[in-house]
Amino acid sequence: MADQNTVVAASDLPIKRPREEDEVEATTKAPDGISSVIPGWFSEISPMWPGEAHSLKVEKILFQGKSEYQNIMIFQSATYGKVLVLDGVIQVTERDECAYQEMIAHLPLCSIPNPKKVLVIGGGDGGVLREVARHSSVEQIDICEIDGMVVEVSKQFFPDLAVGYEDPRVNLHVGDGVAFLKAVPEGTYDAVIVDSSDPIGPAQELFEKPFFESVAKALRPGGVVCTQAESIWLHMHIIEDIVSNCRQIFKGSVNYAWTTVPTYPSGVIGFMLCSTGGPAVDFRNPVNPIEDKDNEKAPLKFYNKEIHSAAFCLPSFAKKVIDSKSK
Amino acid sequence: MADQNTVVAASDLPIKRPREEDEVEATTKAPDGISSVIPGWFSEISPMWPGEAHSLKVEKILFQGKSEYQNIMIFQSATYGKVLVLDGVIQVTERDECAYQEMIAHLPLCSIPNPKKVLVIGGGDGGVLREVARHSSVEQIDICEIDGMVVEVSKQFFPDLAVGYEDPRVNLHVGDGVAFLKAVPEGTYDAVIVDSSDPIGPAQELFEKPFFESVAKALRPGGVVCTQAESIWLHMHIIEDIVSNCRQIFKGSVNYAWTTVPTYPSGVIGFMLCSTGGPAVDFRNPVNPIEDKDNEKAPLKFYNKEIHSAAFCLPSFAKKVIDSKSK
Repeated sequence: MADQNTVVAASDLPIKRPREEDEVEATTKAPDGISSVIPGWFSEISPMWPGEAHSLKVEKILFQGKSEYQNIMIFQSATYGKVLVLDGVIQVTERDECAYQEMIAHLPLCSIPNPKKVLVIGGGDGGVLREVARHSSVEQIDICEIDGMVVEVSKQFFPDLAVGYEDPRVNLHVGDGVAFLKAVPEGTYDAVIVDSSDPIGPAQELFEKPFFESVAKALRPGGVVCTQAESIWLHMHIIEDIVSNCRQIFKGSVNYAWTTVPTYPSGVIGFMLCSTGGPAVDFRNPVNPIEDKDNEKAPLKFYNKEIHSAAFCLPSFAKKVIDSKSK
Repeated sequence: MADQNTVVAASDLPIKRPREEDEVEATTKAPDGISSVIPGWFSEISPMWPGEAHSLKVEKILFQGKSEYQNIMIFQSATYGKVLVLDGVIQVTERDECAYQEMIAHLPLCSIPNPKKVLVIGGGDGGVLREVARHSSVEQIDICEIDGMVVEVSKQFFPDLAVGYEDPRVNLHVGDGVAFLKAVPEGTYDAVIVDSSDPIGPAQELFEKPFFESVAKALRPGGVVCTQAESIWLHMHIIEDIVSNCRQIFKGSVNYAWTTVPTYPSGVIGFMLCSTGGPAVDFRNPVNPIEDKDNEKAPLKFYNKEIHSAAFCLPSFAKKVIDSKSK
């Protein structure tokens, strides 16, 4: 257990792996210059969600480092298990990661029959791989993660996520997802899953039109993409742009879904689900159920067929904006 | 604009209405003794959600007082509008109140044909009344709120909520909801809505079995109740108990639904929806649509028929527990 007064800095920390007896230095400056930290707690402050912050009580800092792309921190929280933080933003907690990983993987893969080739962009922690690997029809799982340090620390500190890498169908490419996709032969994949961080930092390009064009090209006719698509409560302007872009690029269906993840800002996260022209995909009515009998060792915690369909039902304020951009 | 260093205390504040020039005194001790407050921010720390806290940036404290029952605070937040806090817990923010008020009112009222007599327990801010009043079939709206000061401050600071009191069908009773219900003649109401705070403090009895028995007695055959029922991420043990109690008491259907409210702990809030023996109620398939044409002046922001049905679809971890208690 860490000292109650341990303070966690959200950014600008040197590469450092604290030894047991280390005292981590206190810094209370968040990116916007406001004192950001309850002593002994990690606070998530960002211009992406101004005026609010979610905080978790820290028991022990397990890792702090700076990769080529971002600051990486891992801590043991008091009530959410281990937590992975990139550039001051929570990516994963052991307590609620099931919601995000299961939904971003099974929403697309349960919507098409017999997915065989799947590409994951981002998702370096391995949690999405773990979920994709539940599908016995899948023969090849490629992953392109830009930051090798994320892969390394996940293997060290998050074995329940990084277990995804142990599947023999997985091929890891450490590199730029945008460049990787450009080199993919046309029509290669049945599904592409984009498990990105927010569009500030290394993931910025993953929210732009040229990227979606590359995704569409890499998919077979009637193939599907699922991308992390922010919060209806906080980011309707970003979502509007994504929907507009996708409507121009994907000639099949274009849909927005959402789910609950307590440690993500506003408590929800959305997904953009699109299909290319070809065999029609009705995302709201999954055709490829993932049965618990295939997953007896590690049953699904969050996803089921009902919550799949429900995820596409939007509050009126969001439906109005998204429907207007979808036509 | 308040000074950036203004500090908001979550509890134990004297009755005080700060004048413009007042400086509110700093206190940083939360109930568990840990320093809880980012200067200039309100942090919500409670043993009901240990190890985490949501914080909102404060622009100005508008009211602080202590009623006979609880501490009451209202502040202008930087990005969530005005915020009502009872005993250190956020009850309402102007930015996201639509989700809670619309769902707790329309989930029950859209599930039965022609509701005429409705009772609201709690809900002193008036937001639930505003939503109940959208239903043109309703002839009588009784409300029993224990804390008159909540009603007063809502009328002063939250006109968009307290507008509910202006409807001529509304009868306000300031008093104990438990006692009020006991005195209600059997079979009086078509619907009872319990808009309570958490089961620590004045609302404790509203989560116990004798209260649910009084509710069942006050409802007509085939009448419905909707009660605030905590978070599937944080309070499954409380939810289990509520479901068990309701299953014993309500001879019709017993259901759990949930929705997203960013400023509630874990970002979700649940509702227990039950009906008494008599005409069957299928909560998942609403029979009494609330049409936008009836609400042209103030359209619904959150609720629609799709999100009504979707609210009953639960993540597997919650479904498993709730289904086991429902049989």
